[in-house]
Amino acid sequence: MVVRDDVHDPEPEFGQVLVQVKACGICGSDLHFAKHGATMLALGQEMEGMPDLGRVQPDLGRDIFMGHEFSAEVLEVGPDTIGPKPGTIVTSIPAMLTLTGVKDLVYSNDLPAGYSERMLLSAPMLLEVPNGLGFDRAALTEPMAVGFHAVNRSGIEPGAGALVLGCGPVGLAVVAALQVRGVAPIVASDYSPARRALAHRMGAHVAVDPAEEQAFDVWAREGGGRPLVAFEAIGVPGIIDEALRSAPPQARIVVVGVCMERDAITPFFAIGKELNLQFVLGYDPMEFEATLRSIAEGEVDVEPMITGRVGLDGVPDAFRALATPDQHCKILVTP
Amino acid sequence: MVVRDDVHDPEPEFGQVLVQVKACGICGSDLHFAKHGATMLALGQEMEGMPDLGRVQPDLGRDIFMGHEFSAEVLEVGPDTIGPKPGTIVTSIPAMLTLTGVKDLVYSNDLPAGYSERMLLSAPMLLEVPNGLGFDRAALTEPMAVGFHAVNRSGIEPGAGALVLGCGPVGLAVVAALQVRGVAPIVASDYSPARRALAHRMGAHVAVDPAEEQAFDVWAREGGGRPLVAFEAIGVPGIIDEALRSAPPQARIVVVGVCMERDAITPFFAIGKELNLQFVLGYDPMEFEATLRSIAEGEVDVEPMITGRVGLDGVPDAFRALATPDQHCKILVTP
Repeated sequence: MVVRDDVHDPEPEFGQVLVQVKACGICGSDLHFAKHGATMLALGQEMEGMPDLGRVQPDLGRDIFMGHEFSAEVLEVGPDTIGPKPGTIVTSIPAMLTLTGVKDLVYSNDLPAGYSERMLLSAPMLLEVPNGLGFDRAALTEPMAVGFHAVNRSGIEPGAGALVLGCGPVGLAVVAALQVRGVAPIVASDYSPARRALAHRMGAHVAVDPAEEQAFDVWAREGGGRPLVAFEAIGVPGIIDEALRSAPPQARIVVVGVCMERDAITPFFAIGKELNLQFVLGYDPMEFEATLRSIAEGEVDVEPMITGRVGLDGVPDAFRALATPDQHCKILVTP
Repeated sequence: MVVRDDVHDPEPEFGQVLVQVKACGICGSDLHFAKHGATMLALGQEMEGMPDLGRVQPDLGRDIFMGHEFSAEVLEVGPDTIGPKPGTIVTSIPAMLTLTGVKDLVYSNDLPAGYSERMLLSAPMLLEVPNGLGFDRAALTEPMAVGFHAVNRSGIEPGAGALVLGCGPVGLAVVAALQVRGVAPIVASDYSPARRALAHRMGAHVAVDPAEEQAFDVWAREGGGRPLVAFEAIGVPGIIDEALRSAPPQARIVVVGVCMERDAITPFFAIGKELNLQFVLGYDPMEFEATLRSIAEGEVDVEPMITGRVGLDGVPDAFRALATPDQHCKILVTP
């Protein structure tokens, strides 16, 4: 990882807006990609059935821009382009619309992303940050949208309860989305006391230390016989199988954690209890917008999740700090 | 495997009926159990979260009665018991109600099951075979109910199509249930020409030889852009991962095949396409009854699935014959 100061400011073209990044969260998937990038790209090649949206795989032999959880201030609107006035605070789904396809601002060789001073965004994708919401909190729209999407996609019904395995940023985003939806009880589990405390602040009714008691046992006691939707937000090998082994019959397990390795499961457990595994990823534009509104209207207070702030030159150290998850939740890069 | 002729006829007690077995299908799960019985029992012990219905694990050190796909003729109704007249042809879910719990007639040390001349059944569980349906076809109620349940549990919606991987008895039962529900297209796949021909007879619109073309590729061509519900009815290691790799985005995969071994999956494939895995097992009493009615009313013709008949002394040979699946579909034991 290098901090470069020789990248020229991009020029906004038609349909584009040049922005100054105000804050950008460091995502666990960036750490994943730094470690497993080649595996991820190879698996992406192996996977079939995906529509071709003109996406181009990044070249790991060249520099890669990262940073996809950002808020920014509009500096300049491209020629003949309708966009917000300079000075407006905005956020956006991390993707650029171009005439040759959608270009993700997640891992790109060409387009500066959120770990930059300035970047280009697509004018039609911009969302003005409402209600005077601070740019720090606006930068959490993206990770929180992942939780909102997972809860939407779970189809959790009135009367069902939830168990959230893992209280990193993804698990906490799920807890927050469940809380907004009024789900009760929400049982969350994490080995870290700091993360359990955060889970409580984001809306969990019970926070379990799995070193003391198995999360599904606590659910059995707290759930009151309700249908269970469990959210797997850990993403390491073995967790899915552990959930299959321990879940009650007819439970639905939503896999939000992204395990990059091959993993072993015991189908017998899932068959015997007729379990359902719903794998989810990302969010859609309407969910992104709804999440921003939910934060701006105070339904979700993301402030406790922000545990550190660094400048651009602090990114390498922040990546190292996030490898020991007990100390931090979300570190913002504020150029 | 032994054929014993020293088992005394059981005496029907209160709530029970003594029946003479007329026909009993040999189920792939019996072959599985003969091979993997110890593994199945060990995994059952390891699995958590199951309600205790008083079920007792069979002792593999003692003889085990098997045979759970039967039709039978009532011989004698127990004392003070309301039951059908002697001579009535019946079938039943393979389970006995007792005051100490439900006793499965699947793998039992104590209760003679369908591979017997005579057995006991619970009077309240009996279904009279309607419409003069022959006892051969009535014996297929149980395996067909597995397919009806899988389709019910899939929640397949109007406008969606189906892909059935594997055309053994379970896959064919799924094809039949999809046909009754009016699903189109139904694409089925199997390496065996005989089984592909059966799939057509049970209602498949297209039957694919996966040696010639990948099943999901055929679906992509035949499915007309419809949502896909795929049914995995093969049950060997590696099949679930292959489905995850090849399925189109947002597909639902219903796992009806029972893989008894641990299995490797690549969560990345499932996450990237937001796939859903629904594991299913068995059926409920209403589905069992609906399946019997569907067969008796001619909605499903199970006759082509019956590819052999043996007496009780032919069961060991029939087990061997079923190990080479191209020759046979369902062999009936007709004591």
